[in-house]
Amino acid sequence: MTLAHRYQAVRRHSLALAEPLSDEDCGAQSMPDASPIKWHLAHTTWFFETFILERMERGFAPFHPAFRILFNSYYNGIGEKHPRPQRGLLTRPAMAQVRAYRANVDTRIARLLETAPSDELETLLTLGLQHEQQHQELMLTDVKHLLAQSLLRPAYMELPLLVAGAAPPLEWLVFDGGLTEIGHDGQGFGFDNEVPRHKQYIAPFALASRLVTNGEYLNFINAGGYANAALWLAEGWDWVRTQNLRAPIYWFQDEKGAWQEFTLHGPQPLDLNRPATHISLFEADAYAHWAGARLPTEFEWEHAAAQAPLETGALHPAGASKGGLQQMYGHCWQWTSSSYAPYPGFAAAEGALGEYNGKFMLNQYVLRGASCATPEGHARASYRNFFPAGARWQFTGIRLAK
Amino acid sequence: MTLAHRYQAVRRHSLALAEPLSDEDCGAQSMPDASPIKWHLAHTTWFFETFILERMERGFAPFHPAFRILFNSYYNGIGEKHPRPQRGLLTRPAMAQVRAYRANVDTRIARLLETAPSDELETLLTLGLQHEQQHQELMLTDVKHLLAQSLLRPAYMELPLLVAGAAPPLEWLVFDGGLTEIGHDGQGFGFDNEVPRHKQYIAPFALASRLVTNGEYLNFINAGGYANAALWLAEGWDWVRTQNLRAPIYWFQDEKGAWQEFTLHGPQPLDLNRPATHISLFEADAYAHWAGARLPTEFEWEHAAAQAPLETGALHPAGASKGGLQQMYGHCWQWTSSSYAPYPGFAAAEGALGEYNGKFMLNQYVLRGASCATPEGHARASYRNFFPAGARWQFTGIRLAK
Amino acid sequence: MTLAHRYQAVRRHSLALAEPLSDEDCGAQSMPDASPIKWHLAHTTWFFETFILERMERGFAPFHPAFRILFNSYYNGIGEKHPRPQRGLLTRPAMAQVRAYRANVDTRIARLLETAPSDELETLLTLGLQHEQQHQELMLTDVKHLLAQSLLRPAYMELPLLVAGAAPPLEWLVFDGGLTEIGHDGQGFGFDNEVPRHKQYIAPFALASRLVTNGEYLNFINAGGYANAALWLAEGWDWVRTQNLRAPIYWFQDEKGAWQEFTLHGPQPLDLNRPATHISLFEADAYAHWAGARLPTEFEWEHAAAQAPLETGALHPAGASKGGLQQMYGHCWQWTSSSYAPYPGFAAAEGALGEYNGKFMLNQYVLRGASCATPEGHARASYRNFFPAGARWQFTGIRLAK
Amino acid sequence: MTLAHRYQAVRRHSLALAEPLSDEDCGAQSMPDASPIKWHLAHTTWFFETFILERMERGFAPFHPAFRILFNSYYNGIGEKHPRPQRGLLTRPAMAQVRAYRANVDTRIARLLETAPSDELETLLTLGLQHEQQHQELMLTDVKHLLAQSLLRPAYMELPLLVAGAAPPLEWLVFDGGLTEIGHDGQGFGFDNEVPRHKQYIAPFALASRLVTNGEYLNFINAGGYANAALWLAEGWDWVRTQNLRAPIYWFQDEKGAWQEFTLHGPQPLDLNRPATHISLFEADAYAHWAGARLPTEFEWEHAAAQAPLETGALHPAGASKGGLQQMYGHCWQWTSSSYAPYPGFAAAEGALGEYNGKFMLNQYVLRGASCATPEGHARASYRNFFPAGARWQFTGIRLAK
Repeated sequence: MTLAHRYQAVRRHSLALAEPLSDEDCGAQSMPDASPIKWHLAHTTWFFETFILERMERGFAPFHPAFRILFNSYYNGIGEKHPRPQRGLLTRPAMAQVRAYRANVDTRIARLLETAPSDELETLLTLGLQHEQQHQELMLTDVKHLLAQSLLRPAYMELPLLVAGAAPPLEWLVFDGGLTEIGHDGQGFGFDNEVPRHKQYIAPFALASRLVTNGEYLNFINAGGYANAALWLAEGWDWVRTQNLRAPIYWFQDEKGAWQEFTLHGPQPLDLNRPATHISLFEADAYAHWAGARLPTEFEWEHAAAQAPLETGALHPAGASKGGLQQMYGHCWQWTSSSYAPYPGFAAAEGALGEYNGKFMLNQYVLRGASCATPEGHARASYRNFFPAGARWQFTGIRLAK
Repeated sequence: MTLAHRYQAVRRHSLALAEPLSDEDCGAQSMPDASPIKWHLAHTTWFFETFILERMERGFAPFHPAFRILFNSYYNGIGEKHPRPQRGLLTRPAMAQVRAYRANVDTRIARLLETAPSDELETLLTLGLQHEQQHQELMLTDVKHLLAQSLLRPAYMELPLLVAGAAPPLEWLVFDGGLTEIGHDGQGFGFDNEVPRHKQYIAPFALASRLVTNGEYLNFINAGGYANAALWLAEGWDWVRTQNLRAPIYWFQDEKGAWQEFTLHGPQPLDLNRPATHISLFEADAYAHWAGARLPTEFEWEHAAAQAPLETGALHPAGASKGGLQQMYGHCWQWTSSSYAPYPGFAAAEGALGEYNGKFMLNQYVLRGASCATPEGHARASYRNFFPAGARWQFTGIRLAK
Repeated sequence: MTLAHRYQAVRRHSLALAEPLSDEDCGAQSMPDASPIKWHLAHTTWFFETFILERMERGFAPFHPAFRILFNSYYNGIGEKHPRPQRGLLTRPAMAQVRAYRANVDTRIARLLETAPSDELETLLTLGLQHEQQHQELMLTDVKHLLAQSLLRPAYMELPLLVAGAAPPLEWLVFDGGLTEIGHDGQGFGFDNEVPRHKQYIAPFALASRLVTNGEYLNFINAGGYANAALWLAEGWDWVRTQNLRAPIYWFQDEKGAWQEFTLHGPQPLDLNRPATHISLFEADAYAHWAGARLPTEFEWEHAAAQAPLETGALHPAGASKGGLQQMYGHCWQWTSSSYAPYPGFAAAEGALGEYNGKFMLNQYVLRGASCATPEGHARASYRNFFPAGARWQFTGIRLAK
Repeated sequence: MTLAHRYQAVRRHSLALAEPLSDEDCGAQSMPDASPIKWHLAHTTWFFETFILERMERGFAPFHPAFRILFNSYYNGIGEKHPRPQRGLLTRPAMAQVRAYRANVDTRIARLLETAPSDELETLLTLGLQHEQQHQELMLTDVKHLLAQSLLRPAYMELPLLVAGAAPPLEWLVFDGGLTEIGHDGQGFGFDNEVPRHKQYIAPFALASRLVTNGEYLNFINAGGYANAALWLAEGWDWVRTQNLRAPIYWFQDEKGAWQEFTLHGPQPLDLNRPATHISLFEADAYAHWAGARLPTEFEWEHAAAQAPLETGALHPAGASKGGLQQMYGHCWQWTSSSYAPYPGFAAAEGALGEYNGKFMLNQYVLRGASCATPEGHARASYRNFFPAGARWQFTGIRLAK
């Protein structure tokens, strides 16, 4: 597939994700961490306009001068930004105008690719597409959070979830470790936070063959897991108590006390054989303590992942069906115990694009793998996702280590 | 006009107010104090469904059972409520469904009026229409606040404001006061907070003939009004300093330093002869101190208002054009120094409707008159509007007393 | 008693109040609304130094230049202030130094009285003594709040409280009202907020002969008063729910479920015949609703108080023992439904002293009478105390009206 | 020195640290992160009483039953705790009673050592002494923070600081790294967070020979460091802007604009040759970016420290005076880029003592070395101190790496 075709395919997929939603759905923001669909559609376009057209297009004129501020996410190097918690107040520009913005930029990018191809253009365009794919995952998790706020609990897409087959027993797969190479090897695209590839010593370890299931997590709840301070990190215990938590964010009990889970397909009976998801690091860590295990480091995970097949997702994590290492990709991102930090020799890019990753390397923890909401072609073993320990609105799950 | 016709007219006017807006505009909530247009349209309908149809319609079934919670504003007697600060997250029901809700309730109300007319129905219907008119004013002030949040500063209705003629000099009109009667006299509709009509002794006083103008308020600013603690109530001074305020909420200076005012017709050059509006009680009180005057009590205002003509509004306050008592209605609500309190002998209604007014009689201050956004037929001399001292998003202005 | 003697007596009484306390007790601040005893001792001295010595003493030099800032409470006209919530961090100056400060100022005031007597000096000195008496009451209520924070629940003064005799039945005393005179009559000292004396029309009303007792208030609790939204002001209901309240601030149940009350004499069994105290306006208003009554206005109270004897307090409110109007003074301050507002014609003093009262006339409610903690000679019928509706750490109680 | 003698020496040192302070000074708490001196004196005693006497003393009876709650810092396994932000409200027990508590526990510990020596007793006693030494450092940093809140800026100990000699040029010392051993080697005491000793691969690196000086840090300020978003971590930039910071916490400019530093010896002219101290990780990281360097990892630091001499502190960091690796101990703790995490194979102790370290291993960063406030005999190469990135009240400084 040529870059021009890939560009069209990725851009079309973003619009397709908005298809089941009304303009009203696309404008609302359920919390400061989440953004409206409309904002995602505009911001990803802004990325191409600002970092490519503004630099490379002859006679560049912005589609709308105010958009430079309205759709700047966090790039101080670009200038002012519309305040993040107020993205839901941007009823103007309307969805129709954002669609026109997308079409306009797409046309200009296509023309640029034809008339002035270059290595730099290819590099930036590839980055822009990877960036848009990251936002495609957020579009699904953000709209899920929004729909969950309503008493009506509407589905993003109506579809009854099939009951998963019985999960295979959890196996402990043993790895020798040793002095290994960690990081992106230069084949294909990688973000700046995946390099330099470097040496890391890993002690021998064991990794669980599959993710922790809803059934296993329910055992933790029923054993009083949310009421036992001894299982939790100090900050996690404060977090549980302040918010009076007793289950994952999208779990609830119906009038008869039966557990249900809110999904992109609406509320569904809790499927005990599917992976527990939308789990914070606090919860994952407490579960691991309770289970007599721990979370893997990101290096252990990457080392093991060399052997794992890429799997592709749907709109909800699926159950495991066989033995051996599985569910590494395509179901839930997997919390590691590794804080998000630069690799030895890491250097951020010059200018505003240097703000992409480096400035977030503090008080966040690395997740590895990919989820059901990750677009196809976006996952790889060296990929480093990251969120604060209390984040629960992503498709995040638990893989144990020992 | 029959009650049935009045019902139709008022209900149609609410929809007309939403006409210039997109569905996206109608769903957003700019702050907890303001509500989305869609919510106003649904809540006013909920009022008729809950307090009339539920009580009086044979074989009553709700339009949608969840609406009883979603569109309950503050009636504990009715039961649970969707949290106020999250009204902007209700992307479902969609605007189209809310329109259908309105049409459905309108049909059923019309049928009830025909088939089972009664004094109680007439009383409740009249209350419901007055209630809807109150929300019509809020629809304009809430959407104004929403549009003002955007860098694009869009107009609710595009229209250049004409420059007002020179304001006549402020005259001091003298009243003898004495032992007077205050409160609604029983002719036509009045809220429960306007009765019982009762005796009040008023000392002799003088009232300003017109509202304070933008030009006069600008003098206060230029004289350092926002930086002089001695002019402010203690709580007002905290309010000014914490938010670092230096002008009314919708005033701003363009690149050349010229003052502009954001209006429902978009940004306009500040018109020095129009009344200062969107003024908090804190600001009104500080201005009055600076001007060597004070705010009137609500009793003084009502006593004087006997002589004032009702004026009808537009979408922005107009200038005064002659001498004598004027601008009492149809331009800006006027802050009084009276805290909102029950009249001697006040009794709230039985049941949930008793929550309409009584429970808010604390830490709020009475405004008298009516604004440009008040629907026609809604103003009267005994009307008691009320807001906390820091509220600025209503069309509130300053009438001085001595 | 000469003014010089009165000065000495009042000043000595402040030190006597600190007598049962250690230096450690005198330095702590339990909440921003309360101040350390040491701060009270210093601030009352600062008042004399700043408003009298600084103006009138020849060759005035401050005791310590930093004290002008450290012990300024809220006078913007004087200049900077040490932040109120951080008064407990002032471990320097030490108590000994504050005692020396008091002695120094006392000597200089005495000398000034001898060498340069004047009407203005007498006026300011009298104001300073009234001011110090206000702080004497706060010293007791503030230290009570501090001691109550400790698990050890120490007594300010060890003393078992005698059980009060049975409270007489509550009688309703009827008053005709009419056009009355309200405000200080010019005999003896009065604050600026008590004047001008002015006409007020009062409708006929009835006033309860005594305060509401602990036993009556317990009935309100046992009847579900704290769980019934219909009884509460909207803001009061938020207040109850946010803080999860179910009883007055100093009530608690021992291991066996018996109600106890923390007093300045330490924890005591709840005495059902003593007045309920440390009641917020929210609670007083809810109780009155439940009891089918209301709170009096401040004008009703003052009108009735003409007939009531002055009673002197102890360290806890005492029970009523006979019929007729009683407990108007010396037990609990009594909430009125009147917001704290200027009397017609009120004018604040020139300069910083004008900040004494006027700037607080918003969102506070008037209390009338006097409490057990009010110093002798400080109470009168026209006295206007004021606090926000949620304040509970003062000796505040409930007198009903109809 | 026998354990009994060491016990006495350490315990005496805590009391000696309180010597220059009044009882008032010892009771105040300047922020939730800091504790009153009195609380430190009681809590360290509580540690011996709870973890040793309660387990090992025959016929154990607590000194005071409430102390078990009052002086429990964070051990959920022990039970309830007095709320941390309210430690400054504990005016009771008085200092005298806390001294009596210390004496009582000391006597009982001495008796236990004589009558029932055991390995477990020795282990726990050693832990208790190390624990008390940690609090000795906090006593100095907490009281420094308290004294700094006052306008009077009192000294903990009056003493003019000598001007340091010119700092030697910063040298870059090169290390080869490789596969190294990290962690405590079992010789002498080490905390559980220092083990297991384990392999770590370290790439070649360079370490600065000395700490960053005040002069160098002032250059960063003068170059606009606090106003340049590009230098800061995203969270650090929010931190700077929200608090409007422009210099280290204890730096201030006198009336003439000259920089001063508040020290335990009171305000002193900023000494350009002494190390910059009381620096947050945010500031350290921004400085390193500006200087074209980075912070070391904790493994690099420990690897290099093998060659560094132990130095002993005073009450303020001293300047460097020669070449080669120095100021590793005895001046400022040194921020590393390593998040505080368990070493491979880390296992917390059973029971409440297991809460000592493990539960804090999230969102904190490791500091290495020791400061001028660290008690003698408490420093070692494997020691891991840790604080959140915004902490500034410790003696923390900057050592650069490349």
